[in-house]
Amino acid sequence: MLQFEMALSTAQSKLNMIPDEAATEINQILSKIKISPGELAEGTLKNGVPVITFLSLIKERLSSATKNHLHYGTTAQDVMDTAQILIIKDAIALIEKKLQLFIQHLQKLADQYGNVPCMARTRGQLAMPITFGIKVNAWLLPLQRQVERLNEMKKRLLCVQLGGAVGNLSVYQDKGEALVKVLSEILQLQSSCQWHTQRDNLSEFTNWLAILTGVLGKLGADVLVMAQSEISEVVEIEDGGKSSAMPHKNNPVLSEALVATARINAALQLQQLQSIVHVNERDAAAWILEWNAIPQMLINTTTALNHAITIAGKMKINTAMMQHNVETFLKSNT
Amino acid sequence: MLQFEMALSTAQSKLNMIPDEAATEINQILSKIKISPGELAEGTLKNGVPVITFLSLIKERLSSATKNHLHYGTTAQDVMDTAQILIIKDAIALIEKKLQLFIQHLQKLADQYGNVPCMARTRGQLAMPITFGIKVNAWLLPLQRQVERLNEMKKRLLCVQLGGAVGNLSVYQDKGEALVKVLSEILQLQSSCQWHTQRDNLSEFTNWLAILTGVLGKLGADVLVMAQSEISEVVEIEDGGKSSAMPHKNNPVLSEALVATARINAALQLQQLQSIVHVNERDAAAWILEWNAIPQMLINTTTALNHAITIAGKMKINTAMMQHNVETFLKSNT
Amino acid sequence: MLQFEMALSTAQSKLNMIPDEAATEINQILSKIKISPGELAEGTLKNGVPVITFLSLIKERLSSATKNHLHYGTTAQDVMDTAQILIIKDAIALIEKKLQLFIQHLQKLADQYGNVPCMARTRGQLAMPITFGIKVNAWLLPLQRQVERLNEMKKRLLCVQLGGAVGNLSVYQDKGEALVKVLSEILQLQSSCQWHTQRDNLSEFTNWLAILTGVLGKLGADVLVMAQSEISEVVEIEDGGKSSAMPHKNNPVLSEALVATARINAALQLQQLQSIVHVNERDAAAWILEWNAIPQMLINTTTALNHAITIAGKMKINTAMMQHNVETFLKSNT
Amino acid sequence: MLQFEMALSTAQSKLNMIPDEAATEINQILSKIKISPGELAEGTLKNGVPVITFLSLIKERLSSATKNHLHYGTTAQDVMDTAQILIIKDAIALIEKKLQLFIQHLQKLADQYGNVPCMARTRGQLAMPITFGIKVNAWLLPLQRQVERLNEMKKRLLCVQLGGAVGNLSVYQDKGEALVKVLSEILQLQSSCQWHTQRDNLSEFTNWLAILTGVLGKLGADVLVMAQSEISEVVEIEDGGKSSAMPHKNNPVLSEALVATARINAALQLQQLQSIVHVNERDAAAWILEWNAIPQMLINTTTALNHAITIAGKMKINTAMMQHNVETFLKSNT
Repeated sequence: MLQFEMALSTAQSKLNMIPDEAATEINQILSKIKISPGELAEGTLKNGVPVITFLSLIKERLSSATKNHLHYGTTAQDVMDTAQILIIKDAIALIEKKLQLFIQHLQKLADQYGNVPCMARTRGQLAMPITFGIKVNAWLLPLQRQVERLNEMKKRLLCVQLGGAVGNLSVYQDKGEALVKVLSEILQLQSSCQWHTQRDNLSEFTNWLAILTGVLGKLGADVLVMAQSEISEVVEIEDGGKSSAMPHKNNPVLSEALVATARINAALQLQQLQSIVHVNERDAAAWILEWNAIPQMLINTTTALNHAITIAGKMKINTAMMQHNVETFLKSNT
Repeated sequence: MLQFEMALSTAQSKLNMIPDEAATEINQILSKIKISPGELAEGTLKNGVPVITFLSLIKERLSSATKNHLHYGTTAQDVMDTAQILIIKDAIALIEKKLQLFIQHLQKLADQYGNVPCMARTRGQLAMPITFGIKVNAWLLPLQRQVERLNEMKKRLLCVQLGGAVGNLSVYQDKGEALVKVLSEILQLQSSCQWHTQRDNLSEFTNWLAILTGVLGKLGADVLVMAQSEISEVVEIEDGGKSSAMPHKNNPVLSEALVATARINAALQLQQLQSIVHVNERDAAAWILEWNAIPQMLINTTTALNHAITIAGKMKINTAMMQHNVETFLKSNT
Repeated sequence: MLQFEMALSTAQSKLNMIPDEAATEINQILSKIKISPGELAEGTLKNGVPVITFLSLIKERLSSATKNHLHYGTTAQDVMDTAQILIIKDAIALIEKKLQLFIQHLQKLADQYGNVPCMARTRGQLAMPITFGIKVNAWLLPLQRQVERLNEMKKRLLCVQLGGAVGNLSVYQDKGEALVKVLSEILQLQSSCQWHTQRDNLSEFTNWLAILTGVLGKLGADVLVMAQSEISEVVEIEDGGKSSAMPHKNNPVLSEALVATARINAALQLQQLQSIVHVNERDAAAWILEWNAIPQMLINTTTALNHAITIAGKMKINTAMMQHNVETFLKSNT
Repeated sequence: MLQFEMALSTAQSKLNMIPDEAATEINQILSKIKISPGELAEGTLKNGVPVITFLSLIKERLSSATKNHLHYGTTAQDVMDTAQILIIKDAIALIEKKLQLFIQHLQKLADQYGNVPCMARTRGQLAMPITFGIKVNAWLLPLQRQVERLNEMKKRLLCVQLGGAVGNLSVYQDKGEALVKVLSEILQLQSSCQWHTQRDNLSEFTNWLAILTGVLGKLGADVLVMAQSEISEVVEIEDGGKSSAMPHKNNPVLSEALVATARINAALQLQQLQSIVHVNERDAAAWILEWNAIPQMLINTTTALNHAITIAGKMKINTAMMQHNVETFLKSNT
């Protein structure tokens, strides 16, 4: 939100909408300000958005000449929506990095163990021999498509939101469009028509997160089966999860978390989708659903990737047991 | 499913995997066969898939020489997944047509009434005057992005599934890849590696459906407000929904249905997302979630588009009242 | 709905609100009428409820003297809500019967195999020996609580709904309360204040359905593990689900369906819960969620009970393998 | 968790299962210990439960003679499940208090304004005059049923969980049942068979929470309509939510939050319901869903009650406008 207000003032000074000195002061002061969420709590409860309190905390630090040039012509939702996109942009950079690392780990697994024969299991029953590479592919190929999807959606998603009180930029008169353009350049976001009542892009992105944790959930579920004591084809991590009552156990706890996270993100996606029914020109009954869903989904996805990277990097593949299970099957089915 | 078996036999005869006569007979017989869902019910209960019964119903009509060449080397999931994609392909064609018609209606509304001043309402309160065109844009722009999204996802989604019992095409030996290619050409689908345990594409598509009904839900919610007796800026349809007890009423029943459908499709998307956690090489506990979600979502989406087209084509815009509401607001706020 | 209109006319004639002859004719005609859902479709689309068309189809069969006494003073939601409760009452009777049968099957399993030693598995790992009776108890005890819960909620749930156009019975003047009382006696429902905007009881009941399918889902999930080829402690049904590609398989397809149904009913419960946000004095955007959720949940629950009864009655318990798995565990952990 | 370990040691010393001195030391030390969640984070990641680290942090403070008597014969899930019930018990006490206060506020509203005529609105349209008391009843009566439901479920819900490693109390030999009884007396919980794999009670309770926030959501939705600028029958709070761009606005922000919370709790209930599918004798893929859902639902419900209490206590009822709207309606419909 600070980043938005700084960039807005810079853009407005460039377009001679506010004095250059005001923009300079705003950038100087805001780049050093620290506001803790706690300071915004009471005001958010009162106003239904943190922005009013946020602005008054900032204005306390600004000269009286500059105060009136802060947040000029814009509205709470402009700040908050653009701030959310900036957060998402950073989160995407982090997620992409983790995703690439995970993909590399899977490719390494495929290189090393791809040709190991192992049993396919369909509907819980031994089916036919395949190779371990086919299992890895079922985790890997959807991730490659995820990379493709993400690249396609970025142009829609990573857009500035600027509309003013009711989305029509009217307060800026003939400078509205230019302001959007300059602002988006400063923030390194796409320029865009206002979208404050159009929440489709966010739901496209959160579904991407939910698909990602879904795919990691499949990995988790597959590992849980292969790590069952009776199957023992993999060990999630040696010296893994301990039990307080049974010292002989080695619990595949990260895989369980992956399955749970897939279901949790799916439920959050359903909340997010309902935020598209955003009534009229602003509707916090819908908007709050996003505030609840998006941060959780970002955290869940990043955590799930961490777990998946740990598993893919440390999982012990018991090729002898895979081989043994194939042979036992072939013996009893010929 | 019939279409898949016909195309498979044609492809297999082209590649000299089954006799040409078998393929000819299969195509002749299957193109005329009618199987009602009822005939498949008992077998589906027993086997957890309709395919076994489906095949035995077909085999009754085939010569004994040809029987063994039907469904050669393939498995239930190949038939069902590819059939589902064929259904989705047809559904997309229908949905695209309706979506284009709806977009045209909205553009016409924008052309005709786009400059009419009307009140923006934020958080249920009168905010500032805008134009009706801004409201129409909030329905229209997400739909244009939907067209873009759909075009991007088709290459991933509309793919044949052929893998054989456990997905590795092993039974076809060195002809597996060629068979996938020829089969996909006949069915006019993309050729693809097997994806029977990778359900990300389907969940990308169903989210597209849920976003679409979400956007239509926003239209519905907006109409419900503008059609309120106290606001009366639009009438959903003249001579609309009647009440059994209150003859003076004209209920905006299609708009209500749009809001409800948005929530229902959102809930179905959450089911669908969980199907990605498809354990091992086949997992009907996950797969059944798709069987439940996808047909409902297709029907809900098509119905919602019908409603939206009716509304956009027949809604009565009360420009005088919009104007009046703006003037009243301006008078009391200056 | 026919049952409601008949009972209403009977009650109204008893209270001298309509002529006895009208009530007699209404009962005679309506008890023989058959209306197919298809006849109501077009009118439902137009009016957002089927009641207007339903009434006009009935009125065609009534004398003109009687017509005006049909549906006297009541509204669409009275008919539909009470009809829904009547359906639920019948469904409960069916579900209770099936539930009792299932409980008996489980008790028989416990009697017969309760003392058989078998392995507990925690977090997918062999834990410690228990008895099969402990597993059966985990399915049985929640069901006994379900019986208790159902008995507690019936007094709230199985209530007549009668309020007239806006829920205040005003059209009936001082006879409103008496009418509710007589009507509820005829329909063998609880007498009740109007509850047309209070949907908590329905959501309490549907959660009961979702808990029930959840418990059956746990049974299914447990059977899927014990029926895995590598564990083989139970066979869901001998000569169970067949594969179109792998004749050696015996798929536990009913157990998979139980797990899927648990998730589907959970998703439907979330729809149903949102119907509680029923705006003002009637809100079909919320109401439609119920029309979608409740019938599906009733069908899903009954079907799941059928599957569970089949499993509990036909499951083959491999006591030798249970014993063997315990011994193997004890040997390797001492 | 500390409370559980203290009570367990007391109970075990009473039954001569551990030395009295050990129980005394455990109670002395644990009653003073403070463990922050952060100290448990790393261990929870490793072991999938916080209990192992929790115990080792405690053991550091115990004499070596006493260490071995801590947590005797019990397992992580016993501690965690019982601790969760203790938290829920405290939360219920808080929620009951707030609920009673809210009910009193509603009754006061009914006393003061119950007879004020106002318009019923059905399907967004003016319907017929009712009284404001009917609106209040629609919020009040479900809450009275909620009190009834809560009293019925407490006997099932507020139960101790003690089962040992796999739920059969085997380690305690013939003292198991007595231990459960004494432990539950100390903790002021119901004595109970182990229920660690039976999650129906928790889902009954969380549905109660979701119904409660649903009813509050209906209040919120009703207030949003009555507080619309064009209707102005109520003001949520005078000097309510401010806008950063439009000083004339008074946003009903608490009501919006109530509607959003209803939807969020509904989505959490769907997660919780899936935790009933708790596989085998312990299944963290299901269990984690509860860890995610229950704390959020408790917080959401308490917050929603706070909002509802504020609204019911501070809402300004504009009786003149209600009267005016009724008269306008009557004039135009006679």
